[in-house]
Amino acid sequence: MNNELTIKGQAAKKAARVLATLDTTTKNKALATIADAIIERQAVILTANQQDIEAGRANGLSEAILDRLLLTEARLQAIAKDVREVIGLPDPVGEEFESRRMPNGLRISKRRIPIGVIGVIYESRPNVTIDIAVLCLKSSNVAIMRGGKEAIHSNKALAETVQAGLQTAGLPAECVQLIESTDRALIKEMVRANGLIDMIIPRGGAALHHFAIENATVPVITGGMGICHLYVDQTADPAKVWPIVVNSKVQRPSVCNALDTLLVHQAVASQILLGVAEALAQYKVELRCEPRALAILAHHPLAKATESQDFDTEFMALILAIKVVDSLDEALDHIYTHGSSHTDAIITEDYSAAQRFVSEVNSAAVMVNASTRFNDGGQFGLGAEVAISTQPLHARGPMGLKELTTYKWVVLGNGQVRG
Amino acid sequence: MNNELTIKGQAAKKAARVLATLDTTTKNKALATIADAIIERQAVILTANQQDIEAGRANGLSEAILDRLLLTEARLQAIAKDVREVIGLPDPVGEEFESRRMPNGLRISKRRIPIGVIGVIYESRPNVTIDIAVLCLKSSNVAIMRGGKEAIHSNKALAETVQAGLQTAGLPAECVQLIESTDRALIKEMVRANGLIDMIIPRGGAALHHFAIENATVPVITGGMGICHLYVDQTADPAKVWPIVVNSKVQRPSVCNALDTLLVHQAVASQILLGVAEALAQYKVELRCEPRALAILAHHPLAKATESQDFDTEFMALILAIKVVDSLDEALDHIYTHGSSHTDAIITEDYSAAQRFVSEVNSAAVMVNASTRFNDGGQFGLGAEVAISTQPLHARGPMGLKELTTYKWVVLGNGQVRG
Repeated sequence: MNNELTIKGQAAKKAARVLATLDTTTKNKALATIADAIIERQAVILTANQQDIEAGRANGLSEAILDRLLLTEARLQAIAKDVREVIGLPDPVGEEFESRRMPNGLRISKRRIPIGVIGVIYESRPNVTIDIAVLCLKSSNVAIMRGGKEAIHSNKALAETVQAGLQTAGLPAECVQLIESTDRALIKEMVRANGLIDMIIPRGGAALHHFAIENATVPVITGGMGICHLYVDQTADPAKVWPIVVNSKVQRPSVCNALDTLLVHQAVASQILLGVAEALAQYKVELRCEPRALAILAHHPLAKATESQDFDTEFMALILAIKVVDSLDEALDHIYTHGSSHTDAIITEDYSAAQRFVSEVNSAAVMVNASTRFNDGGQFGLGAEVAISTQPLHARGPMGLKELTTYKWVVLGNGQVRG
Repeated sequence: MNNELTIKGQAAKKAARVLATLDTTTKNKALATIADAIIERQAVILTANQQDIEAGRANGLSEAILDRLLLTEARLQAIAKDVREVIGLPDPVGEEFESRRMPNGLRISKRRIPIGVIGVIYESRPNVTIDIAVLCLKSSNVAIMRGGKEAIHSNKALAETVQAGLQTAGLPAECVQLIESTDRALIKEMVRANGLIDMIIPRGGAALHHFAIENATVPVITGGMGICHLYVDQTADPAKVWPIVVNSKVQRPSVCNALDTLLVHQAVASQILLGVAEALAQYKVELRCEPRALAILAHHPLAKATESQDFDTEFMALILAIKVVDSLDEALDHIYTHGSSHTDAIITEDYSAAQRFVSEVNSAAVMVNASTRFNDGGQFGLGAEVAISTQPLHARGPMGLKELTTYKWVVLGNGQVRG
């Protein structure tokens, strides 16, 4: 195994043992010193970031990507403020739940504990480095982070800043570690580092998730990809349709909870689609229409026929696939066949249709009369998220602090033996 | 992919969609018809079982293994009774929890749902076939089961019985399926059957678990192996020590929660070890002693020096490794180094020692003054278990019905969009 990974992994395991028993006050003090360190060291961080920006420009990165990479004084202030907000979030570690007293007198509880060492593999944006570091710290997990090559100088400066903050607070610097090697082979070693890493969170596109699933022996949280559906039922209130479609599609088209496919009941298809097309026109959303939808939108300048993979594509762009369906059943079948278990919504005024949709669609988030964009840790009241999971195990949807924990059974006896 | 696995996996996916929305009454009726079918078809089942027993005898299986394989009228009665007990267990599916109303009026809840299709790979005992089938059914999961070759006739007869019961109750027979091929290559295909199987539970020895971890792309629940420790603290009440040590070690030495290593504080080592050795002598437990322990037990006929791997071995037999430690810290270090996150216990009358042990040992079950044998679904009040997990993700310790579920976020709005 790569030497850096072995050394950092072993140090992480040691640090995890310390971190697991820290009280909340101590962790919060460390978060405050980290927030302070971000402000105090901003000159160093911005200089490092400038190196990444210059290298990125030289390598021909797009302005959009350079903007995601860019740190400024204002952005660092915002990042420090986010760190301080984590101080206010409840600490899930140590909570006891499902407590019971057995007939033989044993007192049994589940007690929430950290997972241990969490390996996070992510791409470009350097603010993710701080996000992960502080959410792992607050939940008593050690983070081993492997960011994108484009952000390596920024990430190093940020990780050093976090480590400085940890040391000021009297905690081991190894609670948060950055893998500095940008060798891609190291990612494969990370996802197979059983014994050093307890859970892998890949934060990136479909390719990264598939790579992790194919290669990992450490448990992986998969997600972050969403082919999201909105089904407009026969009874939908048009006044709710336009804002929800527009918001779901255009508010931030590059993210996983943005709308990809619009399904419309045939009885209201003409009215709804003409209205939707008009509402989306000002945002220049391209409409990829199945024949029946295309017949309705034939004269719309941005409407065209679907291509073969459109219903199986996460667009991450101002493109919307559209299909007219004959019934709720057909909509459910379409979502079952083409969905990715991320976020699916219905717009309806029909009680039974809403109940059926919520009951029969088993995506991480199922919504009635609301924008798909709400599938988010902040919007769900978790305060912050490290990832959105679409897998069935462990956690689904936004993963906040609690989803970074597991539990142990605590059994308190006075000499009981099993009969 | 193997044709049988593909066909059964696709049928399982379809059945899972039906099963996910069934109410509890319907599932309980099916459980009752399955219990009836086991009794009605007992002649067929016992004949099939006799084939396995004869084949096993011809292949030289030990009497102990043949006894595990054997079904009798009485055993089938007991199995049918266990099925009826699952009817009485609460159905976890559909429960809503962590409900909240957001400031924008969205009502958000987590709703418990089945995982989908659960692949279970297990060895010899045919009663496991019924256990898995009914626990999966009650939790609305489809089971695809792959049992041991030695039990193939019994398992086929039992799976057909379950399917007959399902059909009598009007449910798809494909809710419970047995893989009939005994080709070992199929296990590798099962653990890589993403899209057909949602979770793998290996029930067997260390080799099966390692195989699953190494090869699986489907999420796996690992566990079932335990190097269990009991630390006898300086302040332990001797009257509690003997019964707990004896019960932990000898009540059922072949199972994962049986005791493997006894750690004793040096201040009480002589008294405790002489007493323990005497108590264990009648059960002919071999004592593998580190030098300091061996010095105390030098004259005991069953005491010998430890071998190199003894502290890293799950004995599954009447063997106990023994070590004298200088302090609670040394005991904690030993468990941290040699433990397998299964079950570890302390015997103490010291409040702070108990608190520290419970806080610092992060095994699936951590106990004070109780036998390690209590780490079990029935003993913890779950009613029944499909496995004992030692991994940090999803579930730890005994996995009952609730641990066979996941959740989705249900979001009820009235037109909200994200600002």
